Amino acid sequence: MNETLSKIGEREILNRLKRFMDEGQIDDDTALLKNKNQDLLINTDLLVEGVHFNDQTMSAKDIGWKAITSNVSDLAASGLNEMVAISVGLVAPASTKWDWVEKVYEGMEQALHQYGGKLTGGDCSNGNQKMLSITAIGTLGPLRLHRSNASPGDCLVTSGSHGLSRLGFALLVSEKIMNLKNLPYPLQSKAIQAHQRPHPAIKALKALEESKPNYLPWRAGGTDSSDGLLEAIKNLCISSGCRAVINPLKLPRAEGWPKGTLWDEWCLNGGEDYELVISLPEVWANEWIKAIPNASKIGRIEEGLPQVIWENGKEVNGENLTSKFIHF
Amino acid sequence: MNETLSKIGEREILNRLKRFMDEGQIDDDTALLKNKNQDLLINTDLLVEGVHFNDQTMSAKDIGWKAITSNVSDLAASGLNEMVAISVGLVAPASTKWDWVEKVYEGMEQALHQYGGKLTGGDCSNGNQKMLSITAIGTLGPLRLHRSNASPGDCLVTSGSHGLSRLGFALLVSEKIMNLKNLPYPLQSKAIQAHQRPHPAIKALKALEESKPNYLPWRAGGTDSSDGLLEAIKNLCISSGCRAVINPLKLPRAEGWPKGTLWDEWCLNGGEDYELVISLPEVWANEWIKAIPNASKIGRIEEGLPQVIWENGKEVNGENLTSKFIHF
Repeated sequence: MNETLSKIGEREILNRLKRFMDEGQIDDDTALLKNKNQDLLINTDLLVEGVHFNDQTMSAKDIGWKAITSNVSDLAASGLNEMVAISVGLVAPASTKWDWVEKVYEGMEQALHQYGGKLTGGDCSNGNQKMLSITAIGTLGPLRLHRSNASPGDCLVTSGSHGLSRLGFALLVSEKIMNLKNLPYPLQSKAIQAHQRPHPAIKALKALEESKPNYLPWRAGGTDSSDGLLEAIKNLCISSGCRAVINPLKLPRAEGWPKGTLWDEWCLNGGEDYELVISLPEVWANEWIKAIPNASKIGRIEEGLPQVIWENGKEVNGENLTSKFIHF
Repeated sequence: MNETLSKIGEREILNRLKRFMDEGQIDDDTALLKNKNQDLLINTDLLVEGVHFNDQTMSAKDIGWKAITSNVSDLAASGLNEMVAISVGLVAPASTKWDWVEKVYEGMEQALHQYGGKLTGGDCSNGNQKMLSITAIGTLGPLRLHRSNASPGDCLVTSGSHGLSRLGFALLVSEKIMNLKNLPYPLQSKAIQAHQRPHPAIKALKALEESKPNYLPWRAGGTDSSDGLLEAIKNLCISSGCRAVINPLKLPRAEGWPKGTLWDEWCLNGGEDYELVISLPEVWANEWIKAIPNASKIGRIEEGLPQVIWENGKEVNGENLTSKFIHF
């Protein structure tokens, strides 16, 4: 029990911490708080300088915006009805300029203005490294989305395209991978926007709720793709004890997205996409896709050991990738 | 607006952040969340390695314990009825041993076992410096304590002695200030305990509620002394627009506490004492002190500019002190 955290890895760290938690709450990013007449969702997200953001890729306002919206995305992926409150822990070196702090809060304010909820205070402290800890609280809507609620026979649907944020990051740090600067300007611009100013899939969630056929129960498996599409599907499989079959022709690529292995890998493993990844009955899936044009079927859920495979039976894996989103 | 945070100082940072917050919520550490039929208190506290703890003074279990109990203390100082939930953000270098993380969570578990509330999950991330961000949620009891509710004519009462935690710290790091090792063993032991395993004043809060004379309204000014007794009284004065008069003979010294300027300074400015500091009508104060033998009157609240003065009119200040509790 004396290994380092980097050796254990994030998934196993969370797995080991399960025994300290309320049953089942670590399977989703978000916890449910049973309350008199009104159930609340609660979620904490960390943003650490050098791990989740840096000066090259994100302005202080962007950091504030993303701190809030990534939390809203987690709550959306659990069935958020309405945002209630945000509590903020801010660590920064004593040499940090006030201007930076102010801009972070302005970015948060912009996001709260758009997505609701009020800032209720928090704490600040000196530290070596800039860090934001955001705890978001919201009320639960009619559909409690769980990673563990995927079921064999379901369609696998996502609310939008994937990989844009990763492309945006590559553009911002001028990654020397491909001749990215030759990409069409609208795609570049959309990618940078997706990286710096992501939008949680709140509209897609409302449409999901409204499109449920009356005769179906309120049951769907769901998560968001903040850690990447493949990671989201894997988590659904692990929590639900099913396997997912993905159609490579139906990867949710953005408009104008180039062809090629790296591009597909960014679509699968780019991360920070903040779309919903939902496992649900086909009739419901069809209604949802009608309501949300960006949504698309990407595969299906079957009985089997928890893994993600292509139509040809080969495992979908990202082991050749250097993901930014392994936090240990 | 381009000064550094260390130049601005913590109080002014919080002051400047007020405009982003819900009205009045930065005056107390804790925010109130209006909810259907049940109001909730919410509070975030940061513990940063090298600022709030280090390996010399605190074991991993102690850190976990203190992370929870300092939060419970903040909620108690706002009128907590019952703890509900704790959400944890944990940052640690990738080289950190799993054992350390596990022990932190065991310490949190011990504290939750004693004070209630469940761990609902959270987030973890790699970072240069160990850091815990704890957000605690609890229900509000009958008495909403506010820093801004002190009123001229009130007695100033605290639930227990002050300075022990500071002495414990001095003993643990072998500070070369005085011949501390000659202190009676029970005082040393109590001081180390106070530093490593503080207890929030939950019993004192319940007694405060139960001792209110029926004819008095539910109005008392209150805070906890986690940042030191003088800081707590100053905050009451600033938020309430009154001044406090302190009786030097009635400083809340622990049993066996030596005489002397430094000792009085530790009592006033040691910090991390986690007692309640309450401003309330004298009849209520008398009833409370009967119920809680450690509680004592230390002074009174008067009309006047917000400051803390001795009986002789001189300002009580801590400017000669190097406080550990200035976080910027």
